[in-house]
Formats: sequence, C-alpha cells, structure tokens
Amino acid sequence: METPVILVYNENPESIAEYLRGRKCPGRLLTASTPDAARRLIKDVEIVFAWKLPPEVYAQASNLRWIQSMGAGVEDLVVNARIAPSVVMTRIVGQFGAPIAEYVFAEILYRQRNLAEARRLQQARMWQRFPFGSLKGQVIGVAGLGSIGLEIVRRARAFDMHIVGLSRHRHGTEEVDCAYDGTEWGIFVRDLDYLVVTLPLSARTEGVVNGTVFSAMKPTAVVMNVGRGRVIDQHDLIHAVRSGQIAGAVLDVFEEEPLPPDSPLWNLPGVVVTPHISGPSVDAEIGEFFLGNLTRFLQGQFLHGAVDRTLGY
Amino acid sequence: METPVILVYNENPESIAEYLRGRKCPGRLLTASTPDAARRLIKDVEIVFAWKLPPEVYAQASNLRWIQSMGAGVEDLVVNARIAPSVVMTRIVGQFGAPIAEYVFAEILYRQRNLAEARRLQQARMWQRFPFGSLKGQVIGVAGLGSIGLEIVRRARAFDMHIVGLSRHRHGTEEVDCAYDGTEWGIFVRDLDYLVVTLPLSARTEGVVNGTVFSAMKPTAVVMNVGRGRVIDQHDLIHAVRSGQIAGAVLDVFEEEPLPPDSPLWNLPGVVVTPHISGPSVDAEIGEFFLGNLTRFLQGQFLHGAVDRTLGY
Repeated sequence: METPVILVYNENPESIAEYLRGRKCPGRLLTASTPDAARRLIKDVEIVFAWKLPPEVYAQASNLRWIQSMGAGVEDLVVNARIAPSVVMTRIVGQFGAPIAEYVFAEILYRQRNLAEARRLQQARMWQRFPFGSLKGQVIGVAGLGSIGLEIVRRARAFDMHIVGLSRHRHGTEEVDCAYDGTEWGIFVRDLDYLVVTLPLSARTEGVVNGTVFSAMKPTAVVMNVGRGRVIDQHDLIHAVRSGQIAGAVLDVFEEEPLPPDSPLWNLPGVVVTPHISGPSVDAEIGEFFLGNLTRFLQGQFLHGAVDRTLGY
Repeated sequence: METPVILVYNENPESIAEYLRGRKCPGRLLTASTPDAARRLIKDVEIVFAWKLPPEVYAQASNLRWIQSMGAGVEDLVVNARIAPSVVMTRIVGQFGAPIAEYVFAEILYRQRNLAEARRLQQARMWQRFPFGSLKGQVIGVAGLGSIGLEIVRRARAFDMHIVGLSRHRHGTEEVDCAYDGTEWGIFVRDLDYLVVTLPLSARTEGVVNGTVFSAMKPTAVVMNVGRGRVIDQHDLIHAVRSGQIAGAVLDVFEEEPLPPDSPLWNLPGVVVTPHISGPSVDAEIGEFFLGNLTRFLQGQFLHGAVDRTLGY
C-alpha cells in the first residue's frame, strides 16, 4: 500500500485536502461532501478521514482499513455495527483542549463579572457600579478528566478555584483537589458552583446527568456541556432550570443538532446556547494530526487516538 | 498610644467601621464620609484609614502618624506636600490582583470568543457558526509587574499566551518570557496583541502610554487599562482607535472619573468602558489588611505596603 486511497469527507473537504496536498501527503486523495458522492467513491477507499460519514456508506467500504475521525467523539462510529472489527478507528486527541477550555472560562467569567450588565450600562452612558463575583474559591466540577478536562483543570487552577473531578479510570485525578468515580454523582455535584461536562457519549454516559443529579445540586449552580448533548437529559435540564433547582446552563451541544428553532432552551433565562463551536476544527491542526498518524500507519506503528470500541472512546 | 484615634473615611465608612468593631479593633474609631465631617474630627486623629480624603483635611491633622490608604494607588497622597515626611503611608498590596486579573481575562475572552455575536445569534434563535480566535500563542504585554501584574501573568500562562513584561526594577521579570524597562516602550509594544497597563500614577508614568506608543503597535492590538487613567494619554488613545492605529481598548480607569457623559469613549467602536470596578474594595479584605498593619504599628514593627514617596508607590 504505497499510495493508499484516502477519502476526505466533511462539509468542505477541498479545504483540508488542499492543506494535505501542500504538505505532500502520501496517497491518492479523494474528496466528498455528500453521502451520494462518498458512496460512488467508497469501494476503493482504504483510509477514511471524515466527520459524520453516514453508516450506510461504511457498509459498502470493502477495502477499508483505517478510519480517522476529524472529531474527539466517535459515538457514531462505535455504535455502527457494520464497520468490521479489523478496521482501526482513531479520534483526534489533544487538539480541542485549549479552545474548549477557553470557551468554558469565557462563559464563566462573562457570568461572574456580569458583563451583560456592564455592556448595558456602557450603552446607556451610565457610570454605575454593579454587583459581580469572583472565581477565587468557587468550586468547579469537571466530569471527564481526559485531555479536554485537564486543560480546563489547568486554567481553573490559575484562577484559584477549588477543583473537583469525576473520572471513570481515576485518570487525571492527581490534578484535582478531590476526585469521584461514575458511581458518586450525588456527592460529586453537591458543592459545585459550576459543573462542566466533557464526557464522551456511550451507553454508560447517555443521560447520566439527569433530574437526580440536578436535584443534588445547589440552586446557584450552573451546568455547562462541552461534550456531547445526549450525556445530559435535556428534558430534565429544562425542568431543573425552570423550577430553580439550578441557576442556569451553558450549552454548546444538544440532543438534536442544530437545536430546533422552537426549543425552549433558546430563550430560557440563565441559559446560554452556542452552535457546537467550543472546539473548532482547524484544518491545519487536524490535518497535522492525520499526517502524523498516516506516517505511523504506513510504517505499521501504533496510531495516536486509537479508539477502544468497548469503551466508546 | 494604647487606644489610638482612628478616622475611617470613604463613601460609606460605617460599613467598614462595623467590620473593624466586630473584629475587636483596638483604638477609638471615628467615621466621616464628607470633607467637612472629616475636618471637624481630624485634629485628634492619629491614624487615617481612608479612600480619597482631600489634601486640605490632611493639612489640619496635627497628630497624624500613619495613613493607610484603602486602595492600591496613592498618587493623591504622594503629591500632597502638606503631609509631613514623618507620617507613614501604606497602601493595600496583594488584595486586588485576583479580581483585576479576572476582569482582564473576562474582557480578553469576551473579545476573542466573540461573545457579543454569540449572544446576538442566540437571541435570534440562529444556529450559525461565527469566527473567533484563541488566546493560545497570542502575545500579552503586562506593563507593571507588581502584585497585580503578576496575577495577570499567572493566568496568561495557563492560557498558553506569550508573555512580555515591562518593569522599572526588573522585579517579577523572571515570571515573563521577555522583559523590558521603562526606556523600551517601542520594542515592548511592537508585537503585542494585548497591552495591559497596571502601572501606578507618578511623575514618571503620567501620559507614558501616548501617541508614540500607539503608533508602534499592531493595528490589531487592544489596550487595556486597569491601573490609573492618567498613565494613558486619553486624547491620543481616542485618536489611535479612531484612526485604526490600534483595534480597540478596554478601560476601567480614566483621566476624569466618573467619565463625563459626553466623552466619545462611551460609544467608540472597539472600546469597552467600565466604572473603575476591576478591583473592588471588599470591607472584609481591606479591613483585615488594616488590622494586620495596626497590630504591627502598635508593636513598632514594619508595616506592609509601605509607600516610598520618591517612587510614588
């Protein structure tokens, strides 16, 4: 396989393909931006570098050996039984931590420093002080201590927050002040001012942040989701905010995306909605990640970001 | 001087006096919130704990031995020649770093992550991505590496920014990637994405950030002032923003405060105005600082935050 056939698939595959060509990517690069176009090409494809290629297309990929996801979460691939066990799957790791952590602290500081009120007063040309809070000493809970969660922890440390973590494997727990596992949600959330969910979606995590969890939280607490929408039970979340069980939510991911225009989340007081932007895909960054793995793949070495399909990430 | 006479002076002195009484502050506590009220009391006063007590009141303080400012900047006291050299002056140190650094990063992240656009799109129920930037690799310049500047540096580090410092004494320069002194403004600002001014006001710093400095900056740069208004030449700043020499400014302090309602700064595109709130005075925090110094004063020990009047801080 000296010149493997590589399919690049996402909304705008030419952009990243151009980047890969500029970096002298070994292999024959095909591009597709629709399922139909991908279906016409897939038979010869040995490597897929894609974001959300539909399962039925994979079913026709008889020469497929490796799938590199352009994202950090691969729940769509893992649950797709039609991908042969011999096909290697990898996801992007270590690229989304910085932007997602910046998203989290932009929103926490916006809220704590009451920037909405600051902007309103400026617009009215009013020199008037207003109440705001400090992050120092506030309690942040990070659910999921992978590469994204740990970047959030590092910034929380610089703001002198008290940091609590939840992690299945106790991975990363040495970086937090106090750690719990997935059986301890009730204690984990009890004292939090901010709960930040970075968990991958799997059978184990689907709907794990639900009414029981919200009812254990402080009424002043804010829930943030930068992982996957379905980790939070969205119906229970709306109820929790409406009934005052929690003070609000900052949501970048949802059960259904795009979030339907008639969702009550759009204008629920205390809720921030953003269109799945916390961790942007930068062509150069995910391109470099792929190129590194491609070199390893051609040399028969272990790949970075290999997915354990039984864990789902 | 077993029960010294202490004058507490600010807009609302009863609040902090009550805090001090609750902590069994040794001494006779007097309070005043107007110059007239202070003038009637000042003759017997040995210790002043105040924010902006007018110079003419100090001129009548024949028993004064120590002034504890409630702020970090004491330019009003230092330039007041009527205060005898034998009177000890102290300012608050180490209390304003965390809130001011949070102010700085709230505003930097607001800008980088384009939260104004995010809020606008949510209000319109539009699921639409928008451009934004990352702090990672951006260059922040911190002018003044005292206790406030160093708290900003610590958080900039957690966001993986490149950090340049300007410091008169080379104090704190080991914490930054690159350091300059007060003769090197042109080089210091050349590559900055954000210039954060934390300098005290003195004859040396007044108007030091002026048209010459702005013309050396990148047109994409943003100037932030959390120190004292008159360190920046406000006229030159307005010109620099209007002419596109720099991209904008975040201003918490001004040449004249309150900022007059007809100032062009209120609605200059790219400019954020806040009413001198970056470092709030919390009664408990400045009260504890004073109590610690009072104990040291009564025991004849060196005080914390002692002001060198020749330096102005």
